[in-house]
Amino acid sequence: MSHTLAEIARHLDLEVLGPSEQVVTGLAALNEASGSQLTFCANKRYLDQLANSSAGAVILRPEWREFWSGPALLSADPYLDFARATHLFDDRPRPSGQRHASAQIDPSAELDPSVTVDAGAVIGPNVHLAAGVWIGARVVIGPGCVVGEGTEMRPGVVLYHDVSLGSHCLIHANTTIGSDGFGFAPSVKGWHKILQLGRVQVGNRVEIGANCAIDRGALHDTVIGDGVIIDNHVHIAHGVRIGRDSALAGAAAVAGSTVIGERCTIAGQAGLADHLEIADDVHIGGQGRVTRSIADAGYYASGTSIQPQKTWARNAVRFEQLNELARRVSALESQLKDGSVASEGEGE
Amino acid sequence: MSHTLAEIARHLDLEVLGPSEQVVTGLAALNEASGSQLTFCANKRYLDQLANSSAGAVILRPEWREFWSGPALLSADPYLDFARATHLFDDRPRPSGQRHASAQIDPSAELDPSVTVDAGAVIGPNVHLAAGVWIGARVVIGPGCVVGEGTEMRPGVVLYHDVSLGSHCLIHANTTIGSDGFGFAPSVKGWHKILQLGRVQVGNRVEIGANCAIDRGALHDTVIGDGVIIDNHVHIAHGVRIGRDSALAGAAAVAGSTVIGERCTIAGQAGLADHLEIADDVHIGGQGRVTRSIADAGYYASGTSIQPQKTWARNAVRFEQLNELARRVSALESQLKDGSVASEGEGE
Amino acid sequence: MSHTLAEIARHLDLEVLGPSEQVVTGLAALNEASGSQLTFCANKRYLDQLANSSAGAVILRPEWREFWSGPALLSADPYLDFARATHLFDDRPRPSGQRHASAQIDPSAELDPSVTVDAGAVIGPNVHLAAGVWIGARVVIGPGCVVGEGTEMRPGVVLYHDVSLGSHCLIHANTTIGSDGFGFAPSVKGWHKILQLGRVQVGNRVEIGANCAIDRGALHDTVIGDGVIIDNHVHIAHGVRIGRDSALAGAAAVAGSTVIGERCTIAGQAGLADHLEIADDVHIGGQGRVTRSIADAGYYASGTSIQPQKTWARNAVRFEQLNELARRVSALESQLKDGSVASEGEGE
Repeated sequence: MSHTLAEIARHLDLEVLGPSEQVVTGLAALNEASGSQLTFCANKRYLDQLANSSAGAVILRPEWREFWSGPALLSADPYLDFARATHLFDDRPRPSGQRHASAQIDPSAELDPSVTVDAGAVIGPNVHLAAGVWIGARVVIGPGCVVGEGTEMRPGVVLYHDVSLGSHCLIHANTTIGSDGFGFAPSVKGWHKILQLGRVQVGNRVEIGANCAIDRGALHDTVIGDGVIIDNHVHIAHGVRIGRDSALAGAAAVAGSTVIGERCTIAGQAGLADHLEIADDVHIGGQGRVTRSIADAGYYASGTSIQPQKTWARNAVRFEQLNELARRVSALESQLKDGSVASEGEGE
Repeated sequence: MSHTLAEIARHLDLEVLGPSEQVVTGLAALNEASGSQLTFCANKRYLDQLANSSAGAVILRPEWREFWSGPALLSADPYLDFARATHLFDDRPRPSGQRHASAQIDPSAELDPSVTVDAGAVIGPNVHLAAGVWIGARVVIGPGCVVGEGTEMRPGVVLYHDVSLGSHCLIHANTTIGSDGFGFAPSVKGWHKILQLGRVQVGNRVEIGANCAIDRGALHDTVIGDGVIIDNHVHIAHGVRIGRDSALAGAAAVAGSTVIGERCTIAGQAGLADHLEIADDVHIGGQGRVTRSIADAGYYASGTSIQPQKTWARNAVRFEQLNELARRVSALESQLKDGSVASEGEGE
Repeated sequence: MSHTLAEIARHLDLEVLGPSEQVVTGLAALNEASGSQLTFCANKRYLDQLANSSAGAVILRPEWREFWSGPALLSADPYLDFARATHLFDDRPRPSGQRHASAQIDPSAELDPSVTVDAGAVIGPNVHLAAGVWIGARVVIGPGCVVGEGTEMRPGVVLYHDVSLGSHCLIHANTTIGSDGFGFAPSVKGWHKILQLGRVQVGNRVEIGANCAIDRGALHDTVIGDGVIIDNHVHIAHGVRIGRDSALAGAAAVAGSTVIGERCTIAGQAGLADHLEIADDVHIGGQGRVTRSIADAGYYASGTSIQPQKTWARNAVRFEQLNELARRVSALESQLKDGSVASEGEGE
């Protein structure tokens, strides 16, 4: 798979500097690219690396031309154009357009003729699969599911009953959608299961990583908005609603009925408690512990970062006495106000 | 699926107020229910919502009748009775009672005639499946497993060898039970694997969420007590023992050989270190970091909550100096004691 | 499965004390072993338990003989020799050496005649499987994968295309390797997918737990070094490189392009941010929040441990005012320096 610079420029609608007939065999990072590869520079932090790159060509901003004398593609957004360029080097397996003989497809399921169903997949009754859908090997689609045009599921995905996926979604391997929410009422005889009568609705152009679990709602549906992207191992509880174009990174967890706005980013291992409302354009840092609703857009974080263990242990013990420490400081302040020492210098 | 109020009342053994022939078509939350739906009020915090609800009928405490003039079911425990009512609206797929032709069942396996085995499932040698067991599509049951009456496994579940599940359990999709515990001895040649010779014993009426992993023991068994409920993505290491009716929420993790008492609740993303003993009726907050045994029942928490990032960053840096700060406060206290300022007001 | 002490001693190359013809039927912990079982004592902390053990025989250090009068195997490293002894009691299912009729094997795949392929597995085109490989039930191996000698995959594992696994690896159930890294460029139209053009390379003697997800690289490969051990639910993002003999415990997460050195240990639920460099022999504590590169070997930790909830809540609130508290302490210090009180006793 190789392209001339001219072909790439035409595809990306960018201006070429240098020999447009030059052949590009692939993409690589700025500091790793060889003379036959295309790279990109998306941040002025890397202008040093740009100057020293061995790449065959670079996607860069017009104003950085002075740092690079070789072949270039001029872009107002090099990172986005790099993302677009990756699609010219797509080496992923393609759907066969066939239904494998070992797949089990219920006679009542309605599949567009263009649907691919790989080996060992199981399609339940009353399922609707639109044009271009690709059901990977050993995927299980429960009764009544509806899947939109061009959506792909990688091997081992499980959809429970009545899940709907929009068009052009990509669901990675071993992810579960529509499992029962974690709902139980306490009783003297132990936990009494609350049947989860809601469903899961996934919008269009949603990507969900590997080994995720997205539960169906107890009473109202769990809803994943259009354009949402979800990394591996993310846990979405029952009744959660995620606004369009939000992003959740690896191992993030969202508890029941929490509503996340649009264009939010939730970093890795962050956890959101139940029944919260998170505004649009909220960004939560890694391992963030979100226990309150957030009304204002912006960046939020919690926790502390690692230190050498001995130092940390001393600090962590002091944390356990922090309220007491604050009271000791208040006492000192009172003492100084009451005492003979001048009170100037007080405060912030 | 619809029921008259009278039918529901009879099923739940509750008193009806209002027209008992009224038809209920489903369940919904207090603030979302329509005139054909039944809802519930379980907390006096929601009495305002109750007064304004459009629901067709409400399960409520007798003492809250003044807040609601419509049809009602009087209950001493509305949340529990709501949980019970969900079972009247069960819309889940039912087991077929058949063994699918594509399932692979070892001739030495003993299956009650009422067992359902769905497409692509694999049942190993010397497996025993009791009456009413439902093996979902593509489930793999390893050699020697024993599964009690009425237990159901959703698609993609994997049981390694010699796992025992009690009766009336529900195991969600893509969960693994009986995988090797993480046991290795260090050596000059690297990690030397310790074979995990124990098993996993799961009690009766246990529910385990999607994409969980429960490891077999190294020497003694991993044991999940009766009535335990486990959410998605929970990690249970080798040799852990969990007492009856305890609950573990999403992405909680329990390290090797830790023993959890009865009726404990472990919130989402909490982590328990290895070889701890947790008493009965202990409740751990979200992302709790449990590194010590807990001898007393009660509520425990750790960590800090999110703040706007700039504020947080300043506080987090101070945490790294917390021991030093405490020593500075001690120095001030000494100084004031030694000096001319009166010492009253000191301390707690 | 039973062995005489003499047989075990010969296998482990250890000296026997006591009746070498004594029969050992299994292994157990020091405080649980019966008279027919072998146990071990690996730490002087347990010398009390040793003295009171009912075990039939003990692997112990020669210098601890005074604490144990029964049969013994003398070892310079009892824990390692215990690990080696577990392999004498291996009760795991064995590979059949057959290819199950229900497995789907692409005609272009090259399988050594000794390969085992269990029921429902799917082997894609141009796959190479070396001698002794064991493909568990319902495993899916994508096009172009290469698997080294003796490597085993438990049921439900999914390998995307072009993944390479070394020899003598063990991959546990429902783990995904080679899924797309979480790479998207922001645009005015939402997230634009960056195709993940790299691969995953797993070394020799690597063990990966159940329900893990290891993503393929965006441009360069994700690389897991020889002898690395990985617990359940671990998330390895695109382009991560892990040095030989490092260990990652349950639910640890490593973000994109981070490089971990050799012989590191990452405890449970720890999270490493992206693009970090972690030196050799670094040890991160449980739930560690690693946001900076680490240049020096050693032990690191972050976070705080659980406290009773009321105490914790007071401390956690004070954390949110910690910077202010530090400034108040500084003010007090200034005040005392400026004032009439003597300045001795100040500081560290």
